[in-house]
Amino acid sequence: MHVIVVYDTAAKRNPRILRTCRKYLHHVQRSVFEGQLTPAQLRMFQAAVEDALDLSYDNVLVYTFPPGTSPQRLEWGATKPAPTDVL
Amino acid sequence: MHVIVVYDTAAKRNPRILRTCRKYLHHVQRSVFEGQLTPAQLRMFQAAVEDALDLSYDNVLVYTFPPGTSPQRLEWGATKPAPTDVL
Repeated sequence: MHVIVVYDTAAKRNPRILRTCRKYLHHVQRSVFEGQLTPAQLRMFQAAVEDALDLSYDNVLVYTFPPGTSPQRLEWGATKPAPTDVL
Repeated sequence: MHVIVVYDTAAKRNPRILRTCRKYLHHVQRSVFEGQLTPAQLRMFQAAVEDALDLSYDNVLVYTFPPGTSPQRLEWGATKPAPTDVL
């Protein structure tokens, strides 16, 4: 299923959450990732996020879409270079 | 239609984009807003964003969903206080 992830974390944990997201998803904006995950991958991703972050402080929003559907994405403004490496 | 907006802007323009987004949408995370907009409201919002930002530097992602549909939202971690004032 299509997944959008947006995080807001303490700066010192940014490298860890960035690394974790890159393993599963494409980088589309500074703290925004997108991609396709199975329910099992989503559970693995959640476990990795919980390991990487302090969830008493950090916040992660995960939007999921029914299989076969995905949102339309408009982009206004500058496209910044973002790594798109996905394992 | 349901809309998700995520921005990445120069810090000095944060207050302006925050103010603009609050006029149209609900604040759900530091730089993430959500809500319902008609196509006309989306055009007005786009014009306001273009006025508030320097789009040669700043970046705004806008996800839109077909009428009657919206994503499932999971939230992991701390829910930070976020103003939800919508005009």
